Formats: sequence, structure tokens, C-alpha cells
Amino acid sequence: MTASPATPRAHSPLLPGPGLELLALNTATTKNWTLADAVAGCVEAGIAGIGLWRDRVAETGLDQAARLVRDAGLTVTSLCRGGFFAAPDAIEDNRRAVDEAAALGTDTLVLVCGGLPDGSRDLPAARRTVAEGIAALAPYAEAHGVRLAIEPLHPMFCADRAVVSTLGQALDLAEQAGHGTGVVVDTYHVWWDPELETQIARAGAAGLIHAFQVCDWLLPLPADALLGRGHVGDGSIDIPRIAALVAEAGYQGWTEVEIFNQEVWDTPGTETLRTLTERHRRFLAAGAPACH
Amino acid sequence: MTASPATPRAHSPLLPGPGLELLALNTATTKNWTLADAVAGCVEAGIAGIGLWRDRVAETGLDQAARLVRDAGLTVTSLCRGGFFAAPDAIEDNRRAVDEAAALGTDTLVLVCGGLPDGSRDLPAARRTVAEGIAALAPYAEAHGVRLAIEPLHPMFCADRAVVSTLGQALDLAEQAGHGTGVVVDTYHVWWDPELETQIARAGAAGLIHAFQVCDWLLPLPADALLGRGHVGDGSIDIPRIAALVAEAGYQGWTEVEIFNQEVWDTPGTETLRTLTERHRRFLAAGAPACH
Repeated sequence: MTASPATPRAHSPLLPGPGLELLALNTATTKNWTLADAVAGCVEAGIAGIGLWRDRVAETGLDQAARLVRDAGLTVTSLCRGGFFAAPDAIEDNRRAVDEAAALGTDTLVLVCGGLPDGSRDLPAARRTVAEGIAALAPYAEAHGVRLAIEPLHPMFCADRAVVSTLGQALDLAEQAGHGTGVVVDTYHVWWDPELETQIARAGAAGLIHAFQVCDWLLPLPADALLGRGHVGDGSIDIPRIAALVAEAGYQGWTEVEIFNQEVWDTPGTETLRTLTERHRRFLAAGAPACH
Repeated sequence: MTASPATPRAHSPLLPGPGLELLALNTATTKNWTLADAVAGCVEAGIAGIGLWRDRVAETGLDQAARLVRDAGLTVTSLCRGGFFAAPDAIEDNRRAVDEAAALGTDTLVLVCGGLPDGSRDLPAARRTVAEGIAALAPYAEAHGVRLAIEPLHPMFCADRAVVSTLGQALDLAEQAGHGTGVVVDTYHVWWDPELETQIARAGAAGLIHAFQVCDWLLPLPADALLGRGHVGDGSIDIPRIAALVAEAGYQGWTEVEIFNQEVWDTPGTETLRTLTERHRRFLAAGAPACH
């Protein structure tokens, strides 16, 4: 991989806009944008971090994607996603995901672990498969300079997307797997948990919060339950409180905005980024008023 | 309240059909039936228990409802529901629910505790309101021979219907409230919980399982997330396993079938009861094969 003379490499990271330090865009939020669009949008908005999805990277080409973000001076805050450990090609695909994370220059691979295998109702067995899959992948990831970040998904996705449903459960798995494995705290997935304070404190004390993602819980849930997420401040979650818990637990990393929502996707990306930066400054930037 | 000469009182409880011992119909399952229809349907199907909803009781009239079920020899297994402790008339309405439970001859009042108050994002405060509401109601219930049964609802309902999201949390609240307060185990709401085995064992050991409700988790979730429930065996939940856990924990009470599903509601009630009894015999009756 060599730098193209037509696209001179940035030698310094992009300076974030005022109040936007450690804010990152997850590309799932701007689904209507190519990766090149998203990178340009971040530069213009003063957003210095970007979380990438593999499908967006694949359509651009891995080398070109890596060059795009590097040349723009963006930090790749995470790659989504490995996981789905019950799939027939899980081992191979997850190793590829680790390789891609390393090539993109991020140290964090998010794992969405997969639901019940087709036709199965055996949840304990599905959870064992996930535990074994993570444990098998962790040394490979570590050897490539990548930390696995297990994402507990909201329990409404237990059957079809992730049998890892709570932060406590994700932390148990991370501790079993070792080799730098940690967790993702995503407000949408964990906000309801009566154990939230305890488990965030536990995760922070162990240095296991590898990513912090934010979006809000909208009512009513839409027809596609995946898409009920909103901009920070538009829904039911006290996101500043969760951000404070994560900070008090010692997390000093990026805040990635990841919103799955058809209306957001139908909005021009520049407008979405304006909303996103405005909300970040209002609710989450250092010095923003904590509020209920 | 006197027995009408036109409707002679049954002096003995209805004998359940073979394999249907301790099976109860929750009237939410047969939404298209009046209470009188549901009572007649249970008698014909050999279902000896019935769980009542207050709206169905109200449209029939409390005295008439009580007479209907008593004359048919049915056991009222529970009354749904008290709760929603943040509502302005919560104290008064919950006391009325206790009175109605007593009048209907059931010892179990199910509590759906309510979500976040309108416009609030303060989940800890909402949970404190619920804890205080239950604690205030419990002595009144006990004095009237009624046990409160706290129902943890699936975390997807945390914002709008119940800030009590796990069995462990419900048990903490029940223990704090005392005066016979216990919990409902509903497969739909708790099946995903990594703590399920532990908390069912804890609940059983303390004698706090006051009701066991079953229905299945269907995929995909429907547009109205409330309605994604199916007949036992049609979805993702290993209901026989959860029934076995509950039985091993010492629960010897009724199994109430409570299904919120538009398609089920559009089906003639007699057909729904045929499906329901067939599934009970196949999956849940004593001697039914445990299966994954």
C-alpha cells in the first residue's frame, strides 16, 4: 500500500471543532453516504473520529478506505463488526475482521455475537458457542494489535442478533476470554439495566470499556425494531448521566454516535452531522450541563 | 351479592380435562370474547383456571363477573392489573384493584409498574416511585387476603410500561415490600435473562413465585411491539425448560396462557383454546417430553 501522489497524506491528525473533542461519527448513522462522503463530512464538521462498518469499507475497498481516513487525519475509533459465532464461516470471517481492523489502523473490533441458531431454542448452548468463539478469537486479535469489544445488545435482539444481553454478561465473557478483550457500552442497549451503575463501574475499574456509543430510545418502536434509535436528546434515555457514569469509571476514549433510523438515513448527511454536533455540544461536551 | 336462582351455584370446582391440570386461560388471550364467552369456553375445553383483566371485569360488572366464574366452578388464578405507580390516581386505583381481586376470589393481583413519567428521563427516580408505591400498597393487600405479584416486563417496555425489567429487580422490590408480595414469571418477559436460573431458584426458595405465565417470542417483532407473542411452541423460547426451572424451584401453581397477538385475537376463541390445550398437553403437561 503506497500513498498516491494525487492524495498527499496528512501528517497530523485532524483538529476537532470546539466542544467536539473525542466525538466520533459511526458510519451506520450516515447510511446514505459513501465512506468518502462520510470522511469529507467529518472533516468539514470538525469531527475527528470515525467508526467504520465493514460493508462500507468493502464497497470502497480496504486499502482505499484506509488511505481515505488516514489522509484526512481521522482516527478510526472502531470497526463494526465481528461476531455471529454460530455462522458456518465464523472463525474465518472473524479473523478477516481482525485483519481489516488492523489494516484500517483501529485497535477496536466490535463483536455482535449472534442470536439463536436457526430453529434452535437452546439459549444456554448458544451462549456457550459465543463464549468459545470469543475465547478462540482473542489471542489472534491480540497478536494483530486489536482488542475485541463485546457489545451486549438490547434483550429485544436476543433471539436474532445477540444472545449477549447485559453488560454484566459481556464482562464475564471478556474476563474469561482475556487477551485484551473488553466491552462496548451503547446507551441504546444498556440504559434499562438495573445493574447499569454497578457494571459500568466494574468495567471501568478493570479497564474493559473499549468503546462508548450513544443514541436515544424513541417511542413508539418502529415496525422494524432495529430502527428505533434517535439523536441524543430526542428520546427516553438520560444519556448525559450514562456518559458521566462511564467517565467516572475512568473511560477517556471516544464517544461514537451510532443511529439506526430510517428518517435520519433519509436526511442529507450534512444536516445529520449538524444535528449530531449540536447535540454533542449541548449534552455531552466537557462542561455541558448535566440534565434530566 | 346473592346467587341468582336462575344461575345455580356450582358447589364443586370444575374438573380439568386430562393433561390440563393447573392450566389457566388469561382473558387477554381471547380478546374477542366477553367474560361470559371466556368462561363458557373454558368449561367446554376443560380449562379449570382463568386469569382476569380488569377491563373485561368492568364491562361485565364486578358482581356479575364474580358470579359467572364461581358458578362455572372456575378458579380465578390472578387479576391483571394494578401498578402504574406514577399515575396521579395510583393509590386509589391500586386499592380498588385489590378490592376487586378480593371480590373475584383470587389471591393474586398482578402489578405492571409503569414506565417513565411523561417527559422524564430520570429512571432511578421512576424506580424509587415504584418501590414506594408497592411498599405502601402491600399492607392494604395483605389485609384483604391478596398477594401482590410484581411482573418484570421485557426491557423493551422500560420507557413506556414498566421500569421493572428483570426478575432479580422484581424480587428485590418484593422482599423490600414484604406482606406477602411476590413476583410473576412470564416466559415472554424473562427468557433472555442470563440470570434466569439463579433468580427463579431464588424466587422459589423464598416462596415468592405467585404466578407463572407463558407465551412464545415470535420473529420478526410486529409493528406494535406489544403484540409479538405466540402460542407455546411457535417461537424462540424453550418454554418447557423454563417451566421445569419453575417447578424445580418449588412452584406448584397454575400455568396461565397470556398471548397478545392480533392474529390470535382474530381467530375464533374456540379454535384458540383448542390450540392452547393441544400445546399444553404437548409441551407442558406432567409427562410431556422436555425438548429443545
